[in-house]
Amino acid sequence: MRYTDNGAEDIKIAYIGGGSRGWAWGLMSDLAAAQDMSGSVFLYDIDREAAARNECIGNKMKDLKECRSAWNYKAVETMKEALTGADFVVISIMPGTFDEMESDVHAPEKFGIYQSVGDTTGPGGLMRALRTIPMFEEFAAAIRKYCPQAWVINYTNPMTVCVKTLYRVFPKIKAFGCCHEVFGTQKLLGLALEDIKGIQGAQREDIRVNVVGINHFTWLTAAQYKNMDLFPIYREFALKYRDEGFGEKADENWLNRFFDSREQVKLDLFLKYGAIAAAGDRHLAEFCPGSWYLKDEETAHSWGFKLTPVSWRKEDLKNRLARSERLYKGEEEMTINQTGEEGVQQMRSLLGLRDLVTNVNIPNCGQIPNLPLGAVVETNAHFSADSVRPVFAGPVPQSVYPLVSRVCGIQEMTVEAAMGRDLELAFQAFCMDPNMELGLKDARILYNTMVENTAKYLTMYQ
Amino acid sequence: MRYTDNGAEDIKIAYIGGGSRGWAWGLMSDLAAAQDMSGSVFLYDIDREAAARNECIGNKMKDLKECRSAWNYKAVETMKEALTGADFVVISIMPGTFDEMESDVHAPEKFGIYQSVGDTTGPGGLMRALRTIPMFEEFAAAIRKYCPQAWVINYTNPMTVCVKTLYRVFPKIKAFGCCHEVFGTQKLLGLALEDIKGIQGAQREDIRVNVVGINHFTWLTAAQYKNMDLFPIYREFALKYRDEGFGEKADENWLNRFFDSREQVKLDLFLKYGAIAAAGDRHLAEFCPGSWYLKDEETAHSWGFKLTPVSWRKEDLKNRLARSERLYKGEEEMTINQTGEEGVQQMRSLLGLRDLVTNVNIPNCGQIPNLPLGAVVETNAHFSADSVRPVFAGPVPQSVYPLVSRVCGIQEMTVEAAMGRDLELAFQAFCMDPNMELGLKDARILYNTMVENTAKYLTMYQ
Amino acid sequence: MRYTDNGAEDIKIAYIGGGSRGWAWGLMSDLAAAQDMSGSVFLYDIDREAAARNECIGNKMKDLKECRSAWNYKAVETMKEALTGADFVVISIMPGTFDEMESDVHAPEKFGIYQSVGDTTGPGGLMRALRTIPMFEEFAAAIRKYCPQAWVINYTNPMTVCVKTLYRVFPKIKAFGCCHEVFGTQKLLGLALEDIKGIQGAQREDIRVNVVGINHFTWLTAAQYKNMDLFPIYREFALKYRDEGFGEKADENWLNRFFDSREQVKLDLFLKYGAIAAAGDRHLAEFCPGSWYLKDEETAHSWGFKLTPVSWRKEDLKNRLARSERLYKGEEEMTINQTGEEGVQQMRSLLGLRDLVTNVNIPNCGQIPNLPLGAVVETNAHFSADSVRPVFAGPVPQSVYPLVSRVCGIQEMTVEAAMGRDLELAFQAFCMDPNMELGLKDARILYNTMVENTAKYLTMYQ
Amino acid sequence: MRYTDNGAEDIKIAYIGGGSRGWAWGLMSDLAAAQDMSGSVFLYDIDREAAARNECIGNKMKDLKECRSAWNYKAVETMKEALTGADFVVISIMPGTFDEMESDVHAPEKFGIYQSVGDTTGPGGLMRALRTIPMFEEFAAAIRKYCPQAWVINYTNPMTVCVKTLYRVFPKIKAFGCCHEVFGTQKLLGLALEDIKGIQGAQREDIRVNVVGINHFTWLTAAQYKNMDLFPIYREFALKYRDEGFGEKADENWLNRFFDSREQVKLDLFLKYGAIAAAGDRHLAEFCPGSWYLKDEETAHSWGFKLTPVSWRKEDLKNRLARSERLYKGEEEMTINQTGEEGVQQMRSLLGLRDLVTNVNIPNCGQIPNLPLGAVVETNAHFSADSVRPVFAGPVPQSVYPLVSRVCGIQEMTVEAAMGRDLELAFQAFCMDPNMELGLKDARILYNTMVENTAKYLTMYQ
Repeated sequence: MRYTDNGAEDIKIAYIGGGSRGWAWGLMSDLAAAQDMSGSVFLYDIDREAAARNECIGNKMKDLKECRSAWNYKAVETMKEALTGADFVVISIMPGTFDEMESDVHAPEKFGIYQSVGDTTGPGGLMRALRTIPMFEEFAAAIRKYCPQAWVINYTNPMTVCVKTLYRVFPKIKAFGCCHEVFGTQKLLGLALEDIKGIQGAQREDIRVNVVGINHFTWLTAAQYKNMDLFPIYREFALKYRDEGFGEKADENWLNRFFDSREQVKLDLFLKYGAIAAAGDRHLAEFCPGSWYLKDEETAHSWGFKLTPVSWRKEDLKNRLARSERLYKGEEEMTINQTGEEGVQQMRSLLGLRDLVTNVNIPNCGQIPNLPLGAVVETNAHFSADSVRPVFAGPVPQSVYPLVSRVCGIQEMTVEAAMGRDLELAFQAFCMDPNMELGLKDARILYNTMVENTAKYLTMYQ
Repeated sequence: MRYTDNGAEDIKIAYIGGGSRGWAWGLMSDLAAAQDMSGSVFLYDIDREAAARNECIGNKMKDLKECRSAWNYKAVETMKEALTGADFVVISIMPGTFDEMESDVHAPEKFGIYQSVGDTTGPGGLMRALRTIPMFEEFAAAIRKYCPQAWVINYTNPMTVCVKTLYRVFPKIKAFGCCHEVFGTQKLLGLALEDIKGIQGAQREDIRVNVVGINHFTWLTAAQYKNMDLFPIYREFALKYRDEGFGEKADENWLNRFFDSREQVKLDLFLKYGAIAAAGDRHLAEFCPGSWYLKDEETAHSWGFKLTPVSWRKEDLKNRLARSERLYKGEEEMTINQTGEEGVQQMRSLLGLRDLVTNVNIPNCGQIPNLPLGAVVETNAHFSADSVRPVFAGPVPQSVYPLVSRVCGIQEMTVEAAMGRDLELAFQAFCMDPNMELGLKDARILYNTMVENTAKYLTMYQ
Repeated sequence: MRYTDNGAEDIKIAYIGGGSRGWAWGLMSDLAAAQDMSGSVFLYDIDREAAARNECIGNKMKDLKECRSAWNYKAVETMKEALTGADFVVISIMPGTFDEMESDVHAPEKFGIYQSVGDTTGPGGLMRALRTIPMFEEFAAAIRKYCPQAWVINYTNPMTVCVKTLYRVFPKIKAFGCCHEVFGTQKLLGLALEDIKGIQGAQREDIRVNVVGINHFTWLTAAQYKNMDLFPIYREFALKYRDEGFGEKADENWLNRFFDSREQVKLDLFLKYGAIAAAGDRHLAEFCPGSWYLKDEETAHSWGFKLTPVSWRKEDLKNRLARSERLYKGEEEMTINQTGEEGVQQMRSLLGLRDLVTNVNIPNCGQIPNLPLGAVVETNAHFSADSVRPVFAGPVPQSVYPLVSRVCGIQEMTVEAAMGRDLELAFQAFCMDPNMELGLKDARILYNTMVENTAKYLTMYQ
Repeated sequence: MRYTDNGAEDIKIAYIGGGSRGWAWGLMSDLAAAQDMSGSVFLYDIDREAAARNECIGNKMKDLKECRSAWNYKAVETMKEALTGADFVVISIMPGTFDEMESDVHAPEKFGIYQSVGDTTGPGGLMRALRTIPMFEEFAAAIRKYCPQAWVINYTNPMTVCVKTLYRVFPKIKAFGCCHEVFGTQKLLGLALEDIKGIQGAQREDIRVNVVGINHFTWLTAAQYKNMDLFPIYREFALKYRDEGFGEKADENWLNRFFDSREQVKLDLFLKYGAIAAAGDRHLAEFCPGSWYLKDEETAHSWGFKLTPVSWRKEDLKNRLARSERLYKGEEEMTINQTGEEGVQQMRSLLGLRDLVTNVNIPNCGQIPNLPLGAVVETNAHFSADSVRPVFAGPVPQSVYPLVSRVCGIQEMTVEAAMGRDLELAFQAFCMDPNMELGLKDARILYNTMVENTAKYLTMYQ
């Protein structure tokens, strides 16, 4: 890596999960728009074919008219090749396939347990964690070996356990986890401002927030537009829309009816607890007792959100594979439009080019005084040259502390269980989940079934 | 109060709830056995008749052959009279009557929610808290006014919220809450030692334990008999008895089939989490998700414990009233046998006569680093002349942190709601309870019903 | 205050000490350059004449060609007038006159105690604190009464005790203390980069630092230019210049031979402790044991700095008064050049116009884990809409902890003594000062003398 | 080790420094009086002859009429022999000889630095630490290897750094440091009670105290006799005796004019700071700035204490050697009288025979919230079966925090320097000492001289 007059060139990024047909393309687009940065992206994926295609797709971007910065893409065979000399490591993997996810999400339905996403918490989140954590142990060990000074950005879910695993294996790792869910809530606050006060044009960045919680269950304890406290405005908004819901469509970028929500869960949680829940409703619902918003499909619908079936994900994957094919063959051109993700801006900050304060997942060193030290939490942090330092966020509000501390503890316990290859302790974590309201015997049957269903990815536990 | 050669005399104890027909008689018995201490007990009760009877019953104890120490009992009309000049204040009250408790315990059954005790947590515990907290606000204010230097011992449930209320109203109060549940577990450890190792005669005090948690959901993270670590022994014991249960009868002092348990919940929790749950099974079950041990009556029975119906309590009260009558009339003589409670020993320590380390409920100043500062927690503490200082207990074990932190937070929230006279916030606490697995609509109906049922004692909320 | 398309107008600033002939003019200049902000500055000063002159001087700035933003200045008779409705409060006062400062700085010399500044620590700093704290009690009370929502920026020394006093009197005050000393060290790091590596043009803001400590005794535990760790570079620089000193002249803005230093103290401290001392040498020396750098004048000179005599300050004041006269009469034009201070940028951030991370003095809520909670410390903080939140800075390095914790404690004790009007406790703080190596009897004599010398400003202690 | 009906037998104690002619004889005496405990003491000493003599002396005690418990003594050649299978390890060594101590104590006098003891802090304490820490690294490594489960009691000075070293090398060590200095202050409080209130017969144990600080600079923040707060009584006592001193002779056990003090330092510190300094005046003086009580010999005398010359220690050693000879030859009989030390009681507690709360030196896990976590501090702790848990002591009082935190930090830094074999960092610690008020050049000369003087014991630093 070398600095230029206005930025940096020859940056090396290692992309673990580089065959991805979602995040990878987003990153390619954001990098192509970053005129002050250039370099190479080394794509590593256990699906080598996918990585190879992305190499080709990525390299074609240079030819696009809108491309402001030419990056080289290279698919590599080993993590070693990808990591050696890397300035940044990006991790976005899929632990297992949608077949495993099908079990994660749908197996519990036979027992009356419904999950809207199934990738973070709930029985599905736990099974996914069991598959993912051993992989992240490997990543951390490889990073320690090949690029201990690199900054590591994780996008993989379940976010909290992934980041925690990286730090448990390699305590000096410079890693953090990124998630755009808070951004969505900032946008909603902007819409509330317009709806209630008639003030238009507030950008996401103009909505200043204080973030406290854990990933996908983050809370805003302050939200401000210029000198306006947004809490009373949001209260009015919540009272207006809680029952019928707000908005016909979600952010175009992620739009799909299975991701859609009418924000009713978010508004309900605010009116209950006085703090602003800052994640998508489908995620938020999974952190609450199952009987509240996820009792059954009708309950979910009555709260304005849908359960995302894995069949849909499989269908969607087919579309993405087809698009990959078209992009690869040059039948379709990649478009360059900023994703709204902050990965590239974070790199810029870590390179010392421009500071940034944004929300991030890292171990608690006191930024949230009433959660355990060392637990991975989400708050704002200051990104600067070679440093990410948390901003003091204050305690989890008393009214949501019971919900947040509980899941925070379950996530810690899950990492303990997985790293100890202890399926029994994992079962105890499974039973504690807010969405798991089964009796102990049924819980055992379900757990065993889910472990069996995904046994191919759990061999290290035997 | 004056010191004598071997002890102290002229001690003044104020007893709030002094008409009690259980705790009060126990205290009378323990005081009569305390040959190094004497003085007066001022009995205050809203049931003046009951206090008057206890005055008479108490004063008769001086005539008993076994009486080693003569105490004067005096029923008084006002808290002011009881408190002015008091060295100690004992609080053991019944918030409301068994009619209210009937609603607390049995109203939820219509919704499939079963409670084994219903006085600490669960829907019943919450309703009881709503009645109790405003009373404790009054007690704290009166203590601040009439005897700010007195030591205050609370026996009333729900323990955690009672103690918290005292400290919130009068932060400099010298108060703590006492509970004998840990003692029962120490005794069980003694029995395990005998059963597994054939070692007989270990007294409760010989079983040294480290206590961490909240009242009725306390955990032992160390248990030692001489140089023996009791954990492996208890594991063997737990494996032997978890399925069928241990013991035919519980401690004689509290014996009744409705208080009986076969310790299976306790043993199950140990095998799950590796820490020793240290309260009666009927209490422990209520802190766990309702579907585990309290799904229905059969489930409870299969785990070796019974639900205590309030009808039984009413029957039992009749017996105690009858006994009160006989004692009062001199038809029956009070017996002096030590109850096993430590209240009198604690007073002795606070007077500077003999130090004591025992478990107690006080605000967290760091004795449990992973629970919020200020929350009322249960750990060991050092009792010495005019001081109670917590012993560092260490963190709640990771495996039970999700369960403990959750209820710890709910208790804090309950005090907030009750002191703010905010029935809506109280409802949010109600919904978060581990034993409350209803949908939000049913929860609301149940809550409203329970509030209505006990409205007579909730007038301050309107 | 109202927002405009690009900024805000009608901002009200209350300036306590508004007759100042240094800071006030600097602020006027910075405000005149802030094209996105406009409004009024209310000048309050016990020297009403001085405030009136500044009103006139300030209002003339509108006529300057370079003026980008017209601000109105108005001298007022009472704090109430200044504060009512204020969005911001700026405090920069002189507690007492240079006659008092003459005693502060020079009285100790008779006992062999030399002070290079005498306004923060040392016997002089303590006496100044005793005069200042009661004034700040009044300010805090007035702010609570007239503008509790305003943001308060303090520039007055002794910084730490001023900020602490504001928070002790009015715990919900939104106050912080600003100091440019860290900036000077950032500039020096830029010069070291040039000197050692030949890299030119690094701006102060490009030198990213992590700040930890207390005002005027702050330390950098990380310093980065782009991806370069500046510590090895600064080590080389320190070894090169420690003995003979670096630089012929200091920053022009503050240039005067009595403020001059050759940076040797700073370099020596770095080589000793491995952390970068980040304040002027004249300040740093006063926080170390007196025998090190301030044994006598020669010692100071041998370390490349001069003691600033108050006679020089008096002379300088005359010049400033003369300049004030010329400015007032229009014989001289004020020049608009940015001072390098960040006050205006901080206001911009607090208005929600642009975020900023910079160093600031506020109470410790955990940003420095090994200093007492509540003590006023200096670290980076995130300035955003209506919020200043500390960035986690980490512990004071072990090697400087003994020096820093000591003075941190003395400052806390000084506030305690002054707010309790306890001259005896203040004497104990006086005796603990690092620069006070007198025997107890001499210390007493000196203290009494200094108290007497400044008795006019200490009447509240009698 | 085996338990008996009333106690334990076959206890194995390893004594490192077992040739000691002070502590060892005291322990022998205390063990002989402990009728519920018996076993063997393995004496290891680099002076094998001394250990062999103590073996003989110890074994003779069985024949004494007053002997209640027969212990076997055995001198061994290696630490391995001593430690293997040990239940307890006692460490009381002399690091170097009195020749080295002569340099420690008297070399600084040429520079006007006087030390009353010179074994804990000051230039002498630091040099002693540099010799001792590497030895304790070896002890810790050997304990980890041969008896990781043993309880380790350290009596060696400098206490704080010894205990810290044990924990840094072997973090799971079960070690604590014991010191009787607090006991002396408890006795003095008893004497004050008699002197001021005419209350006789209070035993040391009857004076309940809360202890906070670091070894030899501990403070009592509460002191109670029965229900009497001793603070106002001690204040009266302090006012009466501060100027002329109290008492003609010290505790007989330690009586010698060179250990004598008239308690004036202690009383002065109390009147200054409102907390009770709880160590001997000779120690206390060394933790304060040198100019206060140790400016010169006259100053010391005027404060009622003497400097202990090493020549006296050498003379005293001769007497002890002669006594050793007589004891060894049977020309003198050992006497059994309890020393007042608590080592044997602590062992009893750790064996689970009887609980004890007493003061002890262990790493800070929150018992003193305003000192750094992990620093070795002195507070009360609860001794029970196989556990020592600190009692929450609260913060160091604000008024002594500057003095205490400073030395606490210096001790941490000293361990860092010694374990890193970094004589330069050790010099920085040397310069920070409160009793070191030299200029930097003189400090360097003195330091080099002292290092040279004791080079024989500092070879590992080259």
